Amino acid sequence: MALSHIKIVDIFERTDLVGSEVNVKGWVRTRRGNKHVQFVALNDGSSIKSLQIVIDLERFDEEQLKPITTGASLNVKGTLVASQGKGQTVEVQATEIEVYGTADPESYPLQKKGHTLEFLREKAHLRMRTNTFGAVFRIRHNLAFAVHKFFNDKGFFYLNTPLITSSDAEGAGEMFQVTTLNVKIPPRTEKGSIDYSKDFFGKRTSLTVSGQLEGELGATSLGLIYTFGPTFRAEHSNTPRHLAEFWMIEPEMAFYEIEDNMDLAEEFIKYCVQYALDHCRDDIEFLNKMYDNSLIERLEGVLKDSFVRLTYTEGIAILEQAKKKFEFPVKWGVDLQSEHERYLVEQHFKRPVILTDYPKDIKAFYMKQNDDGKTVRAMDVLFPQIGEIIGGSQREEDYDKLMARIEELKIPMKDMWWYLETRKFGTVPHSGFGLGFERLVLFVTGMANIRDVIAFPRTVGNAEF
Amino acid sequence: MALSHIKIVDIFERTDLVGSEVNVKGWVRTRRGNKHVQFVALNDGSSIKSLQIVIDLERFDEEQLKPITTGASLNVKGTLVASQGKGQTVEVQATEIEVYGTADPESYPLQKKGHTLEFLREKAHLRMRTNTFGAVFRIRHNLAFAVHKFFNDKGFFYLNTPLITSSDAEGAGEMFQVTTLNVKIPPRTEKGSIDYSKDFFGKRTSLTVSGQLEGELGATSLGLIYTFGPTFRAEHSNTPRHLAEFWMIEPEMAFYEIEDNMDLAEEFIKYCVQYALDHCRDDIEFLNKMYDNSLIERLEGVLKDSFVRLTYTEGIAILEQAKKKFEFPVKWGVDLQSEHERYLVEQHFKRPVILTDYPKDIKAFYMKQNDDGKTVRAMDVLFPQIGEIIGGSQREEDYDKLMARIEELKIPMKDMWWYLETRKFGTVPHSGFGLGFERLVLFVTGMANIRDVIAFPRTVGNAEF
Repeated sequence: MALSHIKIVDIFERTDLVGSEVNVKGWVRTRRGNKHVQFVALNDGSSIKSLQIVIDLERFDEEQLKPITTGASLNVKGTLVASQGKGQTVEVQATEIEVYGTADPESYPLQKKGHTLEFLREKAHLRMRTNTFGAVFRIRHNLAFAVHKFFNDKGFFYLNTPLITSSDAEGAGEMFQVTTLNVKIPPRTEKGSIDYSKDFFGKRTSLTVSGQLEGELGATSLGLIYTFGPTFRAEHSNTPRHLAEFWMIEPEMAFYEIEDNMDLAEEFIKYCVQYALDHCRDDIEFLNKMYDNSLIERLEGVLKDSFVRLTYTEGIAILEQAKKKFEFPVKWGVDLQSEHERYLVEQHFKRPVILTDYPKDIKAFYMKQNDDGKTVRAMDVLFPQIGEIIGGSQREEDYDKLMARIEELKIPMKDMWWYLETRKFGTVPHSGFGLGFERLVLFVTGMANIRDVIAFPRTVGNAEF
Repeated sequence: MALSHIKIVDIFERTDLVGSEVNVKGWVRTRRGNKHVQFVALNDGSSIKSLQIVIDLERFDEEQLKPITTGASLNVKGTLVASQGKGQTVEVQATEIEVYGTADPESYPLQKKGHTLEFLREKAHLRMRTNTFGAVFRIRHNLAFAVHKFFNDKGFFYLNTPLITSSDAEGAGEMFQVTTLNVKIPPRTEKGSIDYSKDFFGKRTSLTVSGQLEGELGATSLGLIYTFGPTFRAEHSNTPRHLAEFWMIEPEMAFYEIEDNMDLAEEFIKYCVQYALDHCRDDIEFLNKMYDNSLIERLEGVLKDSFVRLTYTEGIAILEQAKKKFEFPVKWGVDLQSEHERYLVEQHFKRPVILTDYPKDIKAFYMKQNDDGKTVRAMDVLFPQIGEIIGGSQREEDYDKLMARIEELKIPMKDMWWYLETRKFGTVPHSGFGLGFERLVLFVTGMANIRDVIAFPRTVGNAEF
């Protein structure tokens, strides 16, 4: 490949090019100067750092420079020189400038002045051009790559579980229906019900809420698998923590017991945080400075020590003895709220916590039942700021115990024969967990609203872009 | 992490362990032997190679060995020794065997004898336990990782474009509707239409057919992006080449012209094929032996030379002069069929071909218009066996030309203001392409039916598992 131009992130590394002619392309972030010389900060999205373009007014026509305003796109040739200015090591003394596209200052929404995150959410098609969102989405990329690299290096296989599903056994939440029927005049059976035999798949279908059950099919064949794909919840929750469409990571491991599962979850999340610190230092430092100056400390904090491991029952005892008044009262059997999780992590232990062995009645049917008859081998990883970041369990591999629980909970299993067969044929101890990818991105970027860590958020009432 | 057992793929590498006690876990592929010694082929999904477990009948009770049949799952402890048998370097002399789960020979569908691919499609929950599908899905994983690694190493950012969309501007095919309305008694407006203001997103929404348009938003912000996610087509095509849900890879690059785009596409696909050859040799050799003994030759073939590059017009001239009778007659202006593409690749040039500058009337509205007024800067990469494997173009960056084409084609752009704004504010030359991931997996595995390279295929009438 012989691209004519050099990416701006690379130019800062190429000290060998100082003194040479270079070609750079990007968008104008700012322009300032005097009547002798003008300075343009050029950014091409590859880095939070912009490259300074120095324009000597003896070489260029004022008229020609007019369209060089914030947001305009340029093709610049010039000499790379060591910079005398503060804040950069090199700059380009322009010899040729071509304006690819202008950005009318009257109508271009991203002017120099700071915008609120709310305003930028309305401009999601342009917001990745800002420092903040450039940083967030570069970090998001690096975290995604870290996920794939972690699992690949450990010999896991990436499994693409289906998005369109005809089963609803997990019951993890409200589902979106997927159809090609004409909703205005749908085909009906003689009794007046919708005739789903005429729908595309010959039955009623929805968007998946989790790939786990199919993930277990993968694990009981290939041994170690992980999914990383979109999942959907049609919940009418208009909060900074809910999305209708989000990305989930769900590893599933044959021959892993709950302790192996905890070890993997801890190693995994530390790996991702460390990877971001190693590969996105400039972006994280920017966010630390601009939004949350305890961000880096918090990231380094979770890497330092082993996560605390204790049972739900022990956790409840600590919460019951806590001096803090909780909004939601605590007793054995209740589902923990974010305030409880954060109390354990931020106040009591001051490091991440893995809570295990939850009451079976607040957890899913497929979790392995403990001998006490009351608890299951669930594990939740609790993080500062976020609360629950990972939820997982060892799975019930005993066919009879699983069926008993399914019948007890009256879960409709008619479409689930395939899931049950994993327990009929060569069943094995196995475990897995799920991580909402956007929660990880929230934690690593320090952003407060989940809509700011996915490029084009889908929430109730909003499917713009 | 201190897992007690060792993966079977690793054991073949661990010559240092010969003579030591090891613990392995997996599923029985076959069991054979005599009244002195039994041999179990144990597979844990990590490799196509099974590990031979040697069971000395003086040490074990016949009764205890009874449940060790094909499909049963075992926890084996024993001594790793150099093997005297053919086909393996090491084997395990069992000292302890625990049967985790049985697989009743009467009902377990995967017995020793070969099954047709059609039969195994009905057993998608178990088929990954076979040699064939184990190989296919390990290769699929490695290709997916190669995609991420290729783009990450080049400084591209992974962008997750939305699955649920309210726009249908690409018009690439029939779409699935996504709704939370009660289809049986949907809310209606006074005029009797469906009242989509009551739907989850406040408007009518569908599943995306391509992430490209949002990808362009990413490229005109972050410079270099790629998507890799599910896309959907509600086409009633029941063929070995169509899926209703499939995975697409769509890189989009600011400042790339069509030549840069061709360079990238060629480098990318060669990288993926080479990666699979380097990392999945055993699996590819198995498929080469069992299904298609020209597979490896074909894979190495596409790596050897540069792809031929010629215009559509030149391609048509070659096809018009061809001695071969085509089912679909060829003349300038027609869309090429697979038979034409394969003739150019397999008969005429005997290597992959990149065809460019197609008639504008058979290509999408967003492709950059050539000065001839007739053609656009499209590029299709054509492959042996597959035909078109990549489709891409330089994009029209000129606002007026793009709008003229949109009006000419009467494309509904009311929801597309955000796309047009990329041409209003700092527009830049840019390019991109799309690769249907399953087509790449088909090519590398040599499988003939696209349902055999995705774990749980969705096709018309089928959303099982």
